[in-house]
Amino acid sequence: MSVGTLHIAGLGPGHESWITPEVTAALAQATDLIGYAPYLARLTPSPGQRFHASDNRVELDRARHALELTARGHRVVVVSGGDPGIFAMAAAVFEAIEAGNPEWRGLDITVCPGISAMQAAAARLGAPLGHDFCAISLSGNLKPFPLVIKRIKAAAEADFVIALYNPASKARPDDIHEAFAVLRAAKAGNTAVIFARAIGRPGEAVHITTLAEADPARADMSTLVLIGSNETRLIERPGLAPFVYTPRSAGSL
Amino acid sequence: MSVGTLHIAGLGPGHESWITPEVTAALAQATDLIGYAPYLARLTPSPGQRFHASDNRVELDRARHALELTARGHRVVVVSGGDPGIFAMAAAVFEAIEAGNPEWRGLDITVCPGISAMQAAAARLGAPLGHDFCAISLSGNLKPFPLVIKRIKAAAEADFVIALYNPASKARPDDIHEAFAVLRAAKAGNTAVIFARAIGRPGEAVHITTLAEADPARADMSTLVLIGSNETRLIERPGLAPFVYTPRSAGSL
Repeated sequence: MSVGTLHIAGLGPGHESWITPEVTAALAQATDLIGYAPYLARLTPSPGQRFHASDNRVELDRARHALELTARGHRVVVVSGGDPGIFAMAAAVFEAIEAGNPEWRGLDITVCPGISAMQAAAARLGAPLGHDFCAISLSGNLKPFPLVIKRIKAAAEADFVIALYNPASKARPDDIHEAFAVLRAAKAGNTAVIFARAIGRPGEAVHITTLAEADPARADMSTLVLIGSNETRLIERPGLAPFVYTPRSAGSL
Repeated sequence: MSVGTLHIAGLGPGHESWITPEVTAALAQATDLIGYAPYLARLTPSPGQRFHASDNRVELDRARHALELTARGHRVVVVSGGDPGIFAMAAAVFEAIEAGNPEWRGLDITVCPGISAMQAAAARLGAPLGHDFCAISLSGNLKPFPLVIKRIKAAAEADFVIALYNPASKARPDDIHEAFAVLRAAKAGNTAVIFARAIGRPGEAVHITTLAEADPARADMSTLVLIGSNETRLIERPGLAPFVYTPRSAGSL
């Protein structure tokens, strides 16, 4: 019997020039690819490969399916967008391992990092993450929203650059408005705010504005929102979009 | 005259399987590569390419040199470790642009993201960044240390996972000890702490411990320190290093 392997691999934001050789090699040797359907749609099956596409809401089921196939000797890749370790599939797989069949702890498992959305957005803009920053998921399915608000307040008061993942929710459309209300109470109106949509994919768009003028409703499911620190600034360029960056010396008390 | 281009490119932590195709293509077309000597030492010059190696302390000089060569029509790559946008060269280049020759604002500049140290460390461990996290540089050269301490306190109180970059400093060897004193005052002694050294490079080592037992002196210039949230946990494995992960549902008030 062949020995199963499990790679939890990040495709990055979308463009193939951002997929690491480690991920490409993992995809090439796989017998089974498991993932959210739009991520699998970016890939072409090799002869003999099986694609197992699923809905976005069933991450734990997907993780258990991957672990079962691996235990049976398949070479499995769990396909994730961005970096699987940042608001993506890796945590779900380890949750399934912790709660599941004890034999799963002995499987050959490799996490393959990828370019996360905040990195892609930062690269397009200049260097907005050039200094201390935090990443917060607004997804309210799995944690209490008051904790999200507490973290946004703390990040604003300590003047981190803030990357907001999953800012739009059909089930909880008011959350992003509440988050902006907290940010507006804690930070200057001229703080840089960026809506970075579908970076590296068709429909890519960057919108640069200020906290006072930002319309939170602009954030959709494909958007990452960046909120600058007090030091984040624009470099204006005639005829071109400004650069946005945070100096390395950013910040004072 | 040829038109100059500037790529600010991240090599990732070290292993070439983590270098994106975008970065590989940028390196291949370059006439001039500029960077901190140990990063350039990872690369082999193509015929006709010039390597400009520098010391780590002269980031702004290096940035200005890159911009001058680009303005003269060279195809320049500023070579950075990790992701150039995360505690690396991109911010220095944009600082140089803001303060420098106005013509530099019109140059053809591309930031090429890379795998940052926290992502490589997370991939080796499991999914410790599986939930809200922040990244803080302990480097005290460019910002007041009380601001670092304020951010660590805020991150601990709001229960972020914390990635500490540049934890060791020859000039300021006490800073990491002060940082740990703050963390110990704010967080439980059994909080997971990881020292991830030289991930993806020769000498790679991971040390998993607790906040109560951690020795901050273990952090050297090649180490990233991860401090878990209250929810970060270990999955023990007989005969193998434990997995470390932070559940997606992490956190309560």
